[in-house]
Amino acid sequence: MRRVYLDHGATTPVHPEVIEAMVACMRDHFGNPSSVHSFGREAKKLLEDARSNVAKLIGARPEEIIFTSGGTEADNLAIFGVARAMRKKGNHIITSAVEHHAVLDACLALKKEGFEITVLPVDEYGMVKIEDLKAALRPETILVTIMHANNEVGTIQPIKEITRIVKEHGAIMHTDAVQTAGKIPVDVNELGVDLLSASSHKIYGPKGVGCLYIRKGTKMFPLTHGGGQERKRRPGTENLPGIVGFGKAAEIMTRDLPEETSRMTKLRNRLIEGFTAIPEVKLNGHPTDRLPINVNVSIRYIEGESLLLMLDMKGIAGSSGSACTSGSLDPSHVLLAMGIPHEIAHGSLRLTLGRDNSEADIDYVLQVVPEIIERLRAMSPLYDRKEAQACTPIK
Amino acid sequence: MRRVYLDHGATTPVHPEVIEAMVACMRDHFGNPSSVHSFGREAKKLLEDARSNVAKLIGARPEEIIFTSGGTEADNLAIFGVARAMRKKGNHIITSAVEHHAVLDACLALKKEGFEITVLPVDEYGMVKIEDLKAALRPETILVTIMHANNEVGTIQPIKEITRIVKEHGAIMHTDAVQTAGKIPVDVNELGVDLLSASSHKIYGPKGVGCLYIRKGTKMFPLTHGGGQERKRRPGTENLPGIVGFGKAAEIMTRDLPEETSRMTKLRNRLIEGFTAIPEVKLNGHPTDRLPINVNVSIRYIEGESLLLMLDMKGIAGSSGSACTSGSLDPSHVLLAMGIPHEIAHGSLRLTLGRDNSEADIDYVLQVVPEIIERLRAMSPLYDRKEAQACTPIK
Repeated sequence: MRRVYLDHGATTPVHPEVIEAMVACMRDHFGNPSSVHSFGREAKKLLEDARSNVAKLIGARPEEIIFTSGGTEADNLAIFGVARAMRKKGNHIITSAVEHHAVLDACLALKKEGFEITVLPVDEYGMVKIEDLKAALRPETILVTIMHANNEVGTIQPIKEITRIVKEHGAIMHTDAVQTAGKIPVDVNELGVDLLSASSHKIYGPKGVGCLYIRKGTKMFPLTHGGGQERKRRPGTENLPGIVGFGKAAEIMTRDLPEETSRMTKLRNRLIEGFTAIPEVKLNGHPTDRLPINVNVSIRYIEGESLLLMLDMKGIAGSSGSACTSGSLDPSHVLLAMGIPHEIAHGSLRLTLGRDNSEADIDYVLQVVPEIIERLRAMSPLYDRKEAQACTPIK
Repeated sequence: MRRVYLDHGATTPVHPEVIEAMVACMRDHFGNPSSVHSFGREAKKLLEDARSNVAKLIGARPEEIIFTSGGTEADNLAIFGVARAMRKKGNHIITSAVEHHAVLDACLALKKEGFEITVLPVDEYGMVKIEDLKAALRPETILVTIMHANNEVGTIQPIKEITRIVKEHGAIMHTDAVQTAGKIPVDVNELGVDLLSASSHKIYGPKGVGCLYIRKGTKMFPLTHGGGQERKRRPGTENLPGIVGFGKAAEIMTRDLPEETSRMTKLRNRLIEGFTAIPEVKLNGHPTDRLPINVNVSIRYIEGESLLLMLDMKGIAGSSGSACTSGSLDPSHVLLAMGIPHEIAHGSLRLTLGRDNSEADIDYVLQVVPEIIERLRAMSPLYDRKEAQACTPIK
């Protein structure tokens, strides 16, 4: 059976060159980078080469990159790290309603420690409004954490503008760039952010590794304690094969980004056109300020989970939202924050493209999906009522 | 040049079968284990197979294993997790003076949060005394964390006896088994512990992955926040290739442990005999209750760092203590806690064996090392004084 993987927002296949680099690392340079002997020095060199490649991907200096076990740890490190280091200055943190749970749940945990959290609403496209941010900033605001692009609907936030306002106010700015670093151009100096989280397995690197960019001079505490690795900001023997893989993935994506972005955008637009040609299917997220790999649609009168199951039987892998909340029956907090009603949020589908996808994959999806939707709607008791509502298109 | 790696306490070469399993995982089963489609289900199966293999290595049930980014995170998760969950019951934690910094520094950080920490002293072999533990336990003691075997001197603590006393007292017992799980028989039920940390890269698995065994019913909070992975105890996309590698390493070590242990013990004893035949060289750590892979000696009148450098030039990789504190000029906190004077602690050497070491490696080391020691001592101004002290052997 044909298999079409369209869940690159959840994770990506590991690039063959990445696997090769990791194997060479594990086979030939297995030393502990903290060891002083030749085995250790070889490992240390690989570690620092990878750091340079990851830094280059986001326009940072190598010494500003701290490797973590992934995006979630990077987000937690940024948020807890700043909160605990800056507590004397203030106890107010601003975030948005559409953040990944790694950010939202870290903020909620801080609330229990006595921090005040403002969760900014978003507009119908999932975009934070600048006036809301301005109104929320207080003298005691120490941190603003707003994602670069949303993992579910692909909306790209105006981080440069947001950061300018946050920095003018004197607060620290963090952005979760897990969905953008390596997918669209990301430059920490262009954006102006103090902290930026990125992940390897979203850009054809291995799982289990990510990084936090920390602008020089940013005051923060570590999350865990132990050895002096990663400038004492993240202890524990470094995940050398993972980091080497991340470095190689960053190198590849730095090289291929322009070409891949334009190819993805074309495939994405074909999918969006195909889906929105189906009656009562609406695109979620911003029509233009969106990730080149992201398609997210609400399909009225069907259950997202049933659709995924039937797509899976046809070899097509998509998702109903983020992978991290798969299995949960709650509708996406992102779609709800965008004002999409419960019953429509339940019928949403996210397809996220990657470098292995071809035009033929899109042909296949656009051939298969309308039939499946038709079949599911035919089984839906709600669909009968639709007849009466046929002329009330979803906005 | 011949290269002899004798720093397996710092990290181990990755076993070829482990690399193979990781490559197969990355190439053929790259899905996100949280995804519901076929790619996700395949990944989930690999994750759970690995969990079973790791559980088997330490006699646990698979559902009691939480994968982490390594031993340091596992130690931090155990210590912070219990401290924060049990704070209402008490604020007293007991540890020992010879713990890894991942444990000691986590306890120190808790001290700043208002916890009281008792650091038990050790005897001349690095062993915790049962009477000290008994005297330290208080009604408000919530956690005792004592390592299974010391990473520097290899002394194996009487964890079974310690745990019996701790459990009778009603406190939670954690042991850092990073140096034992996969090296000597470890069984969580035989030991009786509630929490046990283990690491992959010490047993021929990849770096960047470890686990915390959590006995069913143990109350603890997570360290980081986000998705619902690992029974909501450790969020973030699982490090699938790392975990698969750890699982394979655990499987191999479960199989090879008896044979390897006896082979290591023989090689270790040859090294110990060879070293202690050199004048004024003393074995550190317990003579019999010690790791089969560990040799740690104090060599009077030389600097450990100079010795390491000269060994390195001969292709021999050893260490002066733990890799995590390499580069630091402070003498080992473990040796100092054992009552070894500063100047002698400075002249210590740790050689840690592994499955790639042969009798010929030991021959080479025992041929090279005495010459180097002789040369270094000849250069030492202190060595002149030695002539007068020759008949005062180090205890």
